[in-house]
Amino acid sequence: MSTVAMPTPDAGIIARKDQIVAALAAVLPDDAVIFDPEETRAYECDALTAYRCPPLAVVLPRTTEEVAAAMRICHDMRVPVIPRGAGTSLAGGALPTADSVVIGTMRLREILEIDTDNRFIRVQTGVTNLSVSAELEPLGFFYAPDPSSQLACTIAGNIGMNSGGAHCLKYGVTTNNLLGVRIVMADGEIVDLGGPTLGTGGLDILGLICGSEGQLGIVTEATLRILPRPEGARPMLIGFDSAEVAGECVARIIRSGLIPVAIEYMDDVCLRAVESFARAGYPDCPAVLIVEVEGSAQEIADQTARIRAIADELNPVEFRASRNEDESLAIWKGRKSAFGAMGRLGDYLCLDGTVPVSKLPHTLRRIGELSREHGLEVANVFHAGDGNMHPLILFNANKPGDLERAEAFGADILRLCVDVGGCLTGEHGVGIEKRDLMTSQYSAVDMAIQLEIKSALDPCWLLNPAKVFPLEVSQPHRERAASC
Amino acid sequence: MSTVAMPTPDAGIIARKDQIVAALAAVLPDDAVIFDPEETRAYECDALTAYRCPPLAVVLPRTTEEVAAAMRICHDMRVPVIPRGAGTSLAGGALPTADSVVIGTMRLREILEIDTDNRFIRVQTGVTNLSVSAELEPLGFFYAPDPSSQLACTIAGNIGMNSGGAHCLKYGVTTNNLLGVRIVMADGEIVDLGGPTLGTGGLDILGLICGSEGQLGIVTEATLRILPRPEGARPMLIGFDSAEVAGECVARIIRSGLIPVAIEYMDDVCLRAVESFARAGYPDCPAVLIVEVEGSAQEIADQTARIRAIADELNPVEFRASRNEDESLAIWKGRKSAFGAMGRLGDYLCLDGTVPVSKLPHTLRRIGELSREHGLEVANVFHAGDGNMHPLILFNANKPGDLERAEAFGADILRLCVDVGGCLTGEHGVGIEKRDLMTSQYSAVDMAIQLEIKSALDPCWLLNPAKVFPLEVSQPHRERAASC
Repeated sequence: MSTVAMPTPDAGIIARKDQIVAALAAVLPDDAVIFDPEETRAYECDALTAYRCPPLAVVLPRTTEEVAAAMRICHDMRVPVIPRGAGTSLAGGALPTADSVVIGTMRLREILEIDTDNRFIRVQTGVTNLSVSAELEPLGFFYAPDPSSQLACTIAGNIGMNSGGAHCLKYGVTTNNLLGVRIVMADGEIVDLGGPTLGTGGLDILGLICGSEGQLGIVTEATLRILPRPEGARPMLIGFDSAEVAGECVARIIRSGLIPVAIEYMDDVCLRAVESFARAGYPDCPAVLIVEVEGSAQEIADQTARIRAIADELNPVEFRASRNEDESLAIWKGRKSAFGAMGRLGDYLCLDGTVPVSKLPHTLRRIGELSREHGLEVANVFHAGDGNMHPLILFNANKPGDLERAEAFGADILRLCVDVGGCLTGEHGVGIEKRDLMTSQYSAVDMAIQLEIKSALDPCWLLNPAKVFPLEVSQPHRERAASC
Repeated sequence: MSTVAMPTPDAGIIARKDQIVAALAAVLPDDAVIFDPEETRAYECDALTAYRCPPLAVVLPRTTEEVAAAMRICHDMRVPVIPRGAGTSLAGGALPTADSVVIGTMRLREILEIDTDNRFIRVQTGVTNLSVSAELEPLGFFYAPDPSSQLACTIAGNIGMNSGGAHCLKYGVTTNNLLGVRIVMADGEIVDLGGPTLGTGGLDILGLICGSEGQLGIVTEATLRILPRPEGARPMLIGFDSAEVAGECVARIIRSGLIPVAIEYMDDVCLRAVESFARAGYPDCPAVLIVEVEGSAQEIADQTARIRAIADELNPVEFRASRNEDESLAIWKGRKSAFGAMGRLGDYLCLDGTVPVSKLPHTLRRIGELSREHGLEVANVFHAGDGNMHPLILFNANKPGDLERAEAFGADILRLCVDVGGCLTGEHGVGIEKRDLMTSQYSAVDMAIQLEIKSALDPCWLLNPAKVFPLEVSQPHRERAASC
């Protein structure tokens, strides 16, 4: 049904299932190894549900040592490993293969250390993104990256995908807020990289691990930079009568030198879905921006006035600055429920590409044209301030050929992002979804460097197979690894 | 005379000098190849002048293609390459070996593109750090990293060492402000990594390159994030009657949630040297902090009042907030001339380690004790806000054994940094200076990962030999590379 090819599973490994499970069970607690097909089915997909395949077995360790023990067995028995956080990947980053063992980090749930003096928190990576900030709230601190899935997604997945979120315009994405990790390498070795202080010396392996999509190891602990909560914050909602003008407003805010905490964009398709779902009181117009600023009351007033002046030059159909906590919640309510609201409209493919902010007006116009060419509706709701677009392509999964058309439309949009000087992914990762588009962004030499590094750290190519690297491009490396 | 061992040069390469020079001269302009021993001597050291060795030849290309042509020849003839920016490394990062060709980037001086809408500048990497900000000033923008050597040091060296500076407390170091590079790999291949937009997909090779000290390639172009200039900025000077209390003040400022642009620390040894050199009007007390805040007039007033309140709890002997541009220049004047002023006192070794900010009081006290144990005076002048210390050990280069004593004292200080949870280098890099201390910070597995990556991208181990990795630790990799 779907268009991304997966390699044929290794029948020899599948035939050895009993031995593999026995070896895992010998070193792990009873409840940590799942092999009954009824139960492994729960791990057959992540949030890219168009692709499904139950794994051979699932391991759910509680400690770094248990992760290492499982990895060592998989390495020694040459069994592929699928690292899995909460399974919220929209790019198929945690899709199993039939000959693989899923190693999930969701039971690694301890908060290990909070040090507000030196501004870091150390956690096991199975904790959810939101619970990190919840731990910090009473202390007056927060952790900046805030993916839309933050209620469910875990720090392990955030590190694997270098996740962002609405507040990353000001504070950066995961790699800008990750200070250190404890990671289990492909052969089961445990290593600590980075730490709470500035600088390291030597090669920046920590930076390489962040965003590596489970290709290089499994991160079991993370040291995260924490930030003091601002005195206050205030969103404003600005409505425009065209997508291009809203895009132009974003470009002008960025050009002016202001750095709001967030600039979020929603188009009319999204606005209508959100209104009927959440009744947030949004205006009925082609495009809305939510811009949030923060600081002292004086700073908020200053920035709000400057943004109002920029917006006014572009004749907004609505400008509404929040005056109190209730109004702030109302402005954010619709945006936060946007993905839920869109789900009620039917099936959708959620894309993730970035473009230079000055190219937003052009890109939005071109996406509209592509929508008409492909005959599929698209909704736009995204982090506009850093050019991180999330077009949602609406389709009907029960209609033969519709997913393929949606995927073709999506590929056109991502190629458009690359063509205007942007890139294939802002925060969802490559996974299987964008795997075959990698060569449209990366040169042959660049791909070769990435493959050399993958081979150096995972010589047997056991970690998260068939993701990130196009199969054709990685074939020589995988063939070499076969005799590993 | 000095204590860091260098490997024996390859006599076979030295014997082939004429052929190597001829091959380089055949593909490069006449004035780009230097081989006369009178002229190559100018490249025998960088700013770690205790170590010197003239190279076989020096190449000074003007384009990426010329760098690639030189690299290809060195690769094909198996000649080690020493990448060199402006030669301001304090860690010996650009120290040649007798069998190597220095490839310098100082003639790659073009500003290629300025895009304020999308907030980046693209330059050849031979431009100096200061000239990047000078280009941007009329446009109302700046480039954040500002090493003390910014008048001389180039972007190539900043990337190689992941340089910081006084203003990095708020804006991050080079890796946080580097968006993309064009790099020539060990075999002469040219590749573009990253670019002006958020996100990439695939492995973060750009992050790996930043801070890799010329071990992986030579960066010839860079795309740098630029920031709008703040409305205003104001320094304040705070004097304390002990190092520990000044350290405590830094810790309390950071703990409070404030993020000043800079928090600089100077002790009495430094203050006296600066006063007699620059007559900046500094108080005569054991420790001074310079704290700079920025923003609108209101924001500056708010932050200044909060910092004053924190300082007042600790009974400062002096608190002086600048009231105008002249007073601001006076406060910064002494700090900016500190390294020049110290040079007049005699020889010094400038160290570079980081510690958690909360450990500053303890670390400063312990450095004082170590100074008495080693019988050598030490001056402290450094970026206190991010815990990046630069103790200057004073010694007499003409006194036999004094350098060795200074190096032993320095090693003790760096081990102290690691022991309290910090690390060996904040912004100067490892070079040869800290090479043999790497194993005190990194585990065997961590070192093994770094070496695998070095071998993957520079299989013949030709780039910047004998730096970063302890010779003993890298020996198996270098032996394997010898048959390359």
